[in-house]
Amino acid sequence: MSLLDRVRDCAGYDRDGFRRFVVDGAAIGHIRAEAVVELADFADVFVFQGDEIQLDPRIQGRLARTDAMRAVAEELRDRALVLGWRGELYPVAAAFDDPVLFDLERAAVPFFGLRGYGVHVNGWVDGPDGPAMWIGRRSLSKPTGPGLLDQMVAGGQPSGLGLKQNVVKECKEEAGLAADLSERARPAGTVSYLTERDEGLRNDVLFVYDLKLPADVTPVNEDGEVAEFMLWPMAKVAEEVARQGLFKFNSALVVIDFLVRHGFVEPDAPGYTEIVAGLHR
Amino acid sequence: MSLLDRVRDCAGYDRDGFRRFVVDGAAIGHIRAEAVVELADFADVFVFQGDEIQLDPRIQGRLARTDAMRAVAEELRDRALVLGWRGELYPVAAAFDDPVLFDLERAAVPFFGLRGYGVHVNGWVDGPDGPAMWIGRRSLSKPTGPGLLDQMVAGGQPSGLGLKQNVVKECKEEAGLAADLSERARPAGTVSYLTERDEGLRNDVLFVYDLKLPADVTPVNEDGEVAEFMLWPMAKVAEEVARQGLFKFNSALVVIDFLVRHGFVEPDAPGYTEIVAGLHR
Repeated sequence: MSLLDRVRDCAGYDRDGFRRFVVDGAAIGHIRAEAVVELADFADVFVFQGDEIQLDPRIQGRLARTDAMRAVAEELRDRALVLGWRGELYPVAAAFDDPVLFDLERAAVPFFGLRGYGVHVNGWVDGPDGPAMWIGRRSLSKPTGPGLLDQMVAGGQPSGLGLKQNVVKECKEEAGLAADLSERARPAGTVSYLTERDEGLRNDVLFVYDLKLPADVTPVNEDGEVAEFMLWPMAKVAEEVARQGLFKFNSALVVIDFLVRHGFVEPDAPGYTEIVAGLHR
Repeated sequence: MSLLDRVRDCAGYDRDGFRRFVVDGAAIGHIRAEAVVELADFADVFVFQGDEIQLDPRIQGRLARTDAMRAVAEELRDRALVLGWRGELYPVAAAFDDPVLFDLERAAVPFFGLRGYGVHVNGWVDGPDGPAMWIGRRSLSKPTGPGLLDQMVAGGQPSGLGLKQNVVKECKEEAGLAADLSERARPAGTVSYLTERDEGLRNDVLFVYDLKLPADVTPVNEDGEVAEFMLWPMAKVAEEVARQGLFKFNSALVVIDFLVRHGFVEPDAPGYTEIVAGLHR
């Protein structure tokens, strides 16, 4: 039970167990080796070349690729290989700033090991009793991590929305915060990881924000995605996040990053350099 | 001229140009391929095996290894292959928490591409005119980076001193700060890099601290290592650190890390995810 254990939970994957997924000449994804056979039916979409799976280079342009991949994702959903369909499109590109290659249903992104992006907002209070953090418990109806602990506000980064716009939107839906408050959220870097999960390879970059809330503001969920909010003193946050299975795996990393950045972890604590490295893969 | 350019200045090295240096079964260093010939005279210290250089496994224990490596380092100094001798020992280990394998003169650490550690303290002020940062100009007598810009306080992490002790000691020597003030420095993570420099491979982890100073405190150098201190508004810091050749290469990374953590860089700025990744190698 330690912060280092939680970081190690998200550290790396077995490279031999995955095949590279190449789009427009760039290896932007990784597909579980035993899942590749599921794509054999799509001879008009994929080219199988040695150990690599290519999106057929004859399919050109964002719209055509999006159409082709949508049909594949829907079939994978029907075969129960993609679970928790969201009806939400993620832009897929070689890097965050790069031109979008295609858009793909969010739930299918890990099957292809494509990079996903999200915004995570640490809501905290610096009151007379010392610093404390708002922790959310995820609704039991969430497709991923139902009932697990989480940041006050967190959401995937969909196509067609700016990062700050997304923060403001999610702060309203998940915590009932007005824009004049949520716009004070300060960006504080990223947390990134590459880790094997049931659904495939999670290869995500989370944009981290800190939002210092006035002591008299209490988050109130509006969209049914958060079961409850709790305000925990920072020492309790540090203790609970070290336990296995309480926090959603990636939300635990965001909490640990907050604790590190704000000096709640001493650098001579065992494994400190590995902890910090593990927040940035 | 961008933050991304400064991060890329410190990004990686040509793996083919270096040979692995193995101590006690672990590859803990990298020696420039063309420099390996310089070690041929030390047949009683090194074993040359294929592409690897081993510290002779018959030399056992911290003291014996330290003695053997001291003789090598002194000879390299006499051949002008190790410059800027400090008379300061760095502990060498597979990881920061691991048992020390030997101690080595600081100036010789990059020749062997061993991991070095340092403490860097961002001194800043949150005054009525907005946030500002104390920037030091390194003395012209410094063996590395003379005349370049730097954190308010920065120093290598020598053998036999705790991190916080080192911060307090360096804050006194470099900036004339009393312990009751410097002890308020808050740890804020690490900055790490692997980069080829004239002296060899720099493979360092810097422990980063933020020290918020009262507006009426002015750092005053005591040990002659800082030529001058300047208090710059954060916007000027962000502009100057993006320029090539003004800051010491690793001090630039620490400034950029500060700007990212405190929200002075917007996450939709070009290359943001690469900038953050580049602060953690």
